[in-house]
Amino acid sequence: MMKQRKPISVAEAIERVIDHAQTLGEETVGLFESFGRILIEPIIAQHDVPHFDRSPYDGFAIRSVDTAGATGDNRIEFSVIDHIGAGIVSSKTLTKNEAVRIMTGAPLPSGADAIVMFEQTIELGDSFTIRKPFDTLENVSLQGEDVKEGEEIIEVGSLIHPGTVALLATFGYDKVRVAKQPVVGILSTGTELLDVSEQLAPGKIRNSNGPMIAAQLARMGICFKMYGLSPDNLESSLEMVKRAEKETDCLITTGGVSVGDFDFLPAIYERLGAKVLFNKVAMRPGSVTTVAVANGRYLFGLSGNPSACFTGFELFVRPALLKMMGADKIYLPHTTAVLAEDFTKANPFSRFIRAVYDGVTIRPAGFNKSNAVSSIARGNALIVLPGGSRGFTVGDKVDVLLLGVEEGTGKWLL
Amino acid sequence: MMKQRKPISVAEAIERVIDHAQTLGEETVGLFESFGRILIEPIIAQHDVPHFDRSPYDGFAIRSVDTAGATGDNRIEFSVIDHIGAGIVSSKTLTKNEAVRIMTGAPLPSGADAIVMFEQTIELGDSFTIRKPFDTLENVSLQGEDVKEGEEIIEVGSLIHPGTVALLATFGYDKVRVAKQPVVGILSTGTELLDVSEQLAPGKIRNSNGPMIAAQLARMGICFKMYGLSPDNLESSLEMVKRAEKETDCLITTGGVSVGDFDFLPAIYERLGAKVLFNKVAMRPGSVTTVAVANGRYLFGLSGNPSACFTGFELFVRPALLKMMGADKIYLPHTTAVLAEDFTKANPFSRFIRAVYDGVTIRPAGFNKSNAVSSIARGNALIVLPGGSRGFTVGDKVDVLLLGVEEGTGKWLL
Repeated sequence: MMKQRKPISVAEAIERVIDHAQTLGEETVGLFESFGRILIEPIIAQHDVPHFDRSPYDGFAIRSVDTAGATGDNRIEFSVIDHIGAGIVSSKTLTKNEAVRIMTGAPLPSGADAIVMFEQTIELGDSFTIRKPFDTLENVSLQGEDVKEGEEIIEVGSLIHPGTVALLATFGYDKVRVAKQPVVGILSTGTELLDVSEQLAPGKIRNSNGPMIAAQLARMGICFKMYGLSPDNLESSLEMVKRAEKETDCLITTGGVSVGDFDFLPAIYERLGAKVLFNKVAMRPGSVTTVAVANGRYLFGLSGNPSACFTGFELFVRPALLKMMGADKIYLPHTTAVLAEDFTKANPFSRFIRAVYDGVTIRPAGFNKSNAVSSIARGNALIVLPGGSRGFTVGDKVDVLLLGVEEGTGKWLL
Repeated sequence: MMKQRKPISVAEAIERVIDHAQTLGEETVGLFESFGRILIEPIIAQHDVPHFDRSPYDGFAIRSVDTAGATGDNRIEFSVIDHIGAGIVSSKTLTKNEAVRIMTGAPLPSGADAIVMFEQTIELGDSFTIRKPFDTLENVSLQGEDVKEGEEIIEVGSLIHPGTVALLATFGYDKVRVAKQPVVGILSTGTELLDVSEQLAPGKIRNSNGPMIAAQLARMGICFKMYGLSPDNLESSLEMVKRAEKETDCLITTGGVSVGDFDFLPAIYERLGAKVLFNKVAMRPGSVTTVAVANGRYLFGLSGNPSACFTGFELFVRPALLKMMGADKIYLPHTTAVLAEDFTKANPFSRFIRAVYDGVTIRPAGFNKSNAVSSIARGNALIVLPGGSRGFTVGDKVDVLLLGVEEGTGKWLL
């Protein structure tokens, strides 16, 4: 009855998944809808930033040539011929010992090549004096000093975060070309499952994996279609999977991937003619996680255990979906932290432990069996303990994957 | 002309802001809409988890009493009287040397008190033998071992993340009571500003702060109303602020808060009778950041410089909005990292430098004047250098605030 499955490493499993990503093309969205999307074109500077020489201070625009020889004993006087704020172009051209009162952000008037700050002057009505010479371009914010026209500032495949939006706005992108997002189907299999709104019954549990995955997708800004529950029945599950697979770009199922008598996903993959990329990963929880590809589309078979399901999504589904969008930072960001509690269990496989990370230390979030729902509701990170290890104690440095972070990293931790 | 303003520390400024947060009440949303919202009630376990004794393995349910004396030479035989998967309650009650074939997650049959895993048996048709005695409750996942009924699992004020959704689903919350979200107005002031879709003109720049703040709010899942652009004119700006202040729970303006000749926000606050909490913070960029309160509502006066505006939002607006929703982790998460580049500038005030953090090291994201748009589009963190310091070099450990992280921390870094 027990079929032998050969576990592969997490890194190998991730690589196999990623290798099968098919992109979905592009679409154009309004700037205000672009947050969280993936850029399909680089952002190239459409003009210098700033695109004119401007004053970085409140003060007076002058000609530096007029300041030669100024000292405390030989103050040089300027007469103010105009007064401009940001957004205003002075119509005046400075001649000898003339100045324009100028506010931060305003363009340098014609003839001016330096800015005197208020605190460097003594003001007297419509004139002022200075006590030191100024260099050409002193206190001037120069055209192109931030960005030069034509410069590639942001690469294809970047996530659009709020700073990216600022940059897009600066260059006049009121529409943005972004990667199309996959539509992801979610199907929860298992005769034991009830809908969230149903009353408990003997031997039954409510479907928590479906809504959880929906939230994991929502966290990524990705749309989903719920296919509800499917009891453990080969023919009806097969029909449901076939339908969902046609209607979506990628299907996530939960449950049914182990080797139990009523685990029908392996048979379903076979009936679909799907290519199974792996069905055993050297990890806990979630060693039964299975990924297959049919008609160029992913079929993610996540474990029915909530912690394993959660981890399987973050490790395999998330980078695959990001890769489908051409993203360049598809993996969970990682760091190291100091273990704040002993963890003495053996780790024959790589172990991922839901944990609370505070920026320095990390501790397991609670009960650690793979079916534990309580620990999944706490924590913001996963402790990663390498396979073949045991006996981690307080003070040990451990690898950490961070959850709920907007942008990932381009390199897998392990 | 220059009014003297007394700078206060960032910590003091944050405290003053937070102290004025007014909550907005609650609303009920569907479970699938609850991701990212703030819980207004604790999650209390509505029942034990698991709520029945169940099998954590595929195998056979037996009575441990029947296993006494089993050895390799004295194998004890059991006959299989039923076959159940998860979600199925056996109608049988075990008597002497009877067993039920049982799959992971299925409830223990009546009379059974231990599970024999397949690999601990030799199967022969409808019977099997074992070679060792089993203890009462051996290999049984016990009712309530994960969570006990009545236990408070998640506290009021918690962010609903995907794991929380799993927990809510488990306990049958198809609707969830969450904090109402503020509606936030965004008004960009400055005669220099053009809309994103407009052509550049001499002395003008496109409004990048408005769309950026909209994205910073979108990142938090919060709705906004755009009030567009307002040139530097006291009366028209005042009218716009009055209107926006009435229509929203909180208004963010950009620009106009410094001491320049055309900076009218201070006068507007006065005309509104607003209480100015501070108008100078000992930080770079963004020392002119001003926060006022009128009619119990925040008026955030952020700097018009993009980096300062960005930082002002993350430091002051973000925690204030989270506090308005009763959230318990309102501050940006922090850690420390190793500086990968020298930063030798003096820091008379606390300095926040947009930076790229890779989990170990951190480096400034680029050009670091407060008007730099290019650095804002890169990076995932802020380096925090304390006021009164200078001369940070490669290898120094520095404080770091993390950006784009779903859930913050309850304690401000500084």
